[in-house]
Amino acid sequence: MYIEKKHFRTIWPDPRCKHVEVIDQTKLPFSMEVNRIYSLDMMVHAIKTMQVRGAPLIGVAAAYGLALAMLEDDSDANLTLAANSLIMARPTAVNLAWAVNRVSTVLQSKIPAHRNMAAWREAGKMAEEDVLQNQSIGQHGLVLIKKAYQDKVFNVLTHCNAGWLATVDYGTALAPVFAAHDAGLAIHVWVDETRPRNQGASLTAWELLQQGVPHTVVSDNAGGHLMQQGLVDMVMVGADRVTGQGDVCNKIGTYLKALAAYDNDVPFYAAVPSPSIDWAISAGDITIENRHEDEVAYMSGLTQDKTIETIRVMPEGSKAANPAFDITPARLVTGVLTEKGVFAPGALRKEFESIC
Amino acid sequence: MYIEKKHFRTIWPDPRCKHVEVIDQTKLPFSMEVNRIYSLDMMVHAIKTMQVRGAPLIGVAAAYGLALAMLEDDSDANLTLAANSLIMARPTAVNLAWAVNRVSTVLQSKIPAHRNMAAWREAGKMAEEDVLQNQSIGQHGLVLIKKAYQDKVFNVLTHCNAGWLATVDYGTALAPVFAAHDAGLAIHVWVDETRPRNQGASLTAWELLQQGVPHTVVSDNAGGHLMQQGLVDMVMVGADRVTGQGDVCNKIGTYLKALAAYDNDVPFYAAVPSPSIDWAISAGDITIENRHEDEVAYMSGLTQDKTIETIRVMPEGSKAANPAFDITPARLVTGVLTEKGVFAPGALRKEFESIC
Repeated sequence: MYIEKKHFRTIWPDPRCKHVEVIDQTKLPFSMEVNRIYSLDMMVHAIKTMQVRGAPLIGVAAAYGLALAMLEDDSDANLTLAANSLIMARPTAVNLAWAVNRVSTVLQSKIPAHRNMAAWREAGKMAEEDVLQNQSIGQHGLVLIKKAYQDKVFNVLTHCNAGWLATVDYGTALAPVFAAHDAGLAIHVWVDETRPRNQGASLTAWELLQQGVPHTVVSDNAGGHLMQQGLVDMVMVGADRVTGQGDVCNKIGTYLKALAAYDNDVPFYAAVPSPSIDWAISAGDITIENRHEDEVAYMSGLTQDKTIETIRVMPEGSKAANPAFDITPARLVTGVLTEKGVFAPGALRKEFESIC
Repeated sequence: MYIEKKHFRTIWPDPRCKHVEVIDQTKLPFSMEVNRIYSLDMMVHAIKTMQVRGAPLIGVAAAYGLALAMLEDDSDANLTLAANSLIMARPTAVNLAWAVNRVSTVLQSKIPAHRNMAAWREAGKMAEEDVLQNQSIGQHGLVLIKKAYQDKVFNVLTHCNAGWLATVDYGTALAPVFAAHDAGLAIHVWVDETRPRNQGASLTAWELLQQGVPHTVVSDNAGGHLMQQGLVDMVMVGADRVTGQGDVCNKIGTYLKALAAYDNDVPFYAAVPSPSIDWAISAGDITIENRHEDEVAYMSGLTQDKTIETIRVMPEGSKAANPAFDITPARLVTGVLTEKGVFAPGALRKEFESIC
């Protein structure tokens, strides 16, 4: 997608395969900075600190992380060590484990001397696949939007960032929005701020702004009221994992929006590439990451004199808790939107297997 | 209640009836400042800018505002003008109109020369009534908590601030919490941050801290997940208005928590003094105040060098919307907790009338 009209992806390899470059998403929306990642440790750090974030993107980032690890030491022992440290960087995202396991399997079949280049190739292939998957999600989603479109502004509500910044390019939940906008439909996005890390207000708003898509930021509290007022035509979110039963694990607060959508007959879709579907797990077994309480207690933003400042937003002495994800039960989900098409959550396993 | 172990109310008159003093709630939790209000205009400004906020408190503040107006000009014309400008300061809160109308009716029956002192007396009477009502809400709520209490930590989730800072003293939704804590029950409060103005993180957390009540601040997104995990025993909120049908108009986001409570069989109570029940209105007729988008776009807090700073938390160029309240339909409300007792929302009108 575009930043000041120049095409960017969120991650790309150095042509000489010595480092990886990523957009540092902790600096957005106020500063666009590109970080060079030279080592496994730097990649683990980038994933942990959310310089790269979003389930599909961290999968690809982890694949490149293994390539960097093989550059340092291509032994079996280091491959195992690197794989584990990458998987542990963010325990909730299934893509991360999926990507690491995929690249590891390829590398285990090679002699150590061939592993480095094989890892770069596999990571590159995964990046291209991600882009194609997301374009396909966009096209399937466009069909959904066109069906519901009624020659007036079509309002999509989204939570967190499942736009192109969460992927290599195009995005998952926002891919249909970009496709609809490109197709000339009048589309408007309600952007949930998404506390505590504000990925909606900082990343989703920024990328919609860069793409010229009309949008309005709202506090996470507002979505239910907007739906009650008939101001939301569709809720579209990404997901960190979808179970085979169609339960959706996504950013904390998604469940509340799904409840409101259900209560107001607004369709609720989770858009995910198929590697985000975890066929082996049930909702109760998903580890919900508890992040540091300082993410709730402090916020960063731009002061009047254009410097980035971090402020405390609650009293010294009060504690905070910070569960990072919640699980939306399948009964509240209208459909799971993948690169293969849209599936009713209850029929996900059966229909998906019959297609793939 | 207490601030650093010294007793305070949120508002009190100068003994010579020349001005009113209020705790400036826009400065909390980082600075405790008392503002002197000398005129009607200053009181309208204090209400509009939320130096005083919370439905019960702004009712009493408006009553004192009329007293200040009568100090300046005790004519019929000024009485009407003052009443209108106070009511328009915050259109959603029914207490405000109720309080203004109550004092106006008293003053209209007096000759102008007697209006000033009559207004001070009536405002003072209302302040005392508010305190007694809230103590009574606390006692009725304590009965509810004791019934549900099971000799382990009892978790209450609250949204926004309906503590003593929202009233003259004791609070509405937090009155039962304070009563339970005083009675020696092990009580813990999940405090919704309550974006965009953060009344939970800044005011509720602060007053619970001052009172020594265990509490944890969470983002507004977290409550649904906490309920799914069985970590909430009761949701207790205040309300700006409750209709005769038991619909609850309260801070934006309340509806989402009520949906989650209903979905997880957690009892959901709205605690209000009876003047907050608007027998004449139905939910569809309530004016929902849309506040300035800057409340979403900017946040204030404490920097590392202990100065208050305001930061922008979304990109320049993106718009925000800021509906301030939503309406929780009666079907999601377990009970309306008032100074007269607890009422099922559907039976509110009938039972209330039979008691009062």
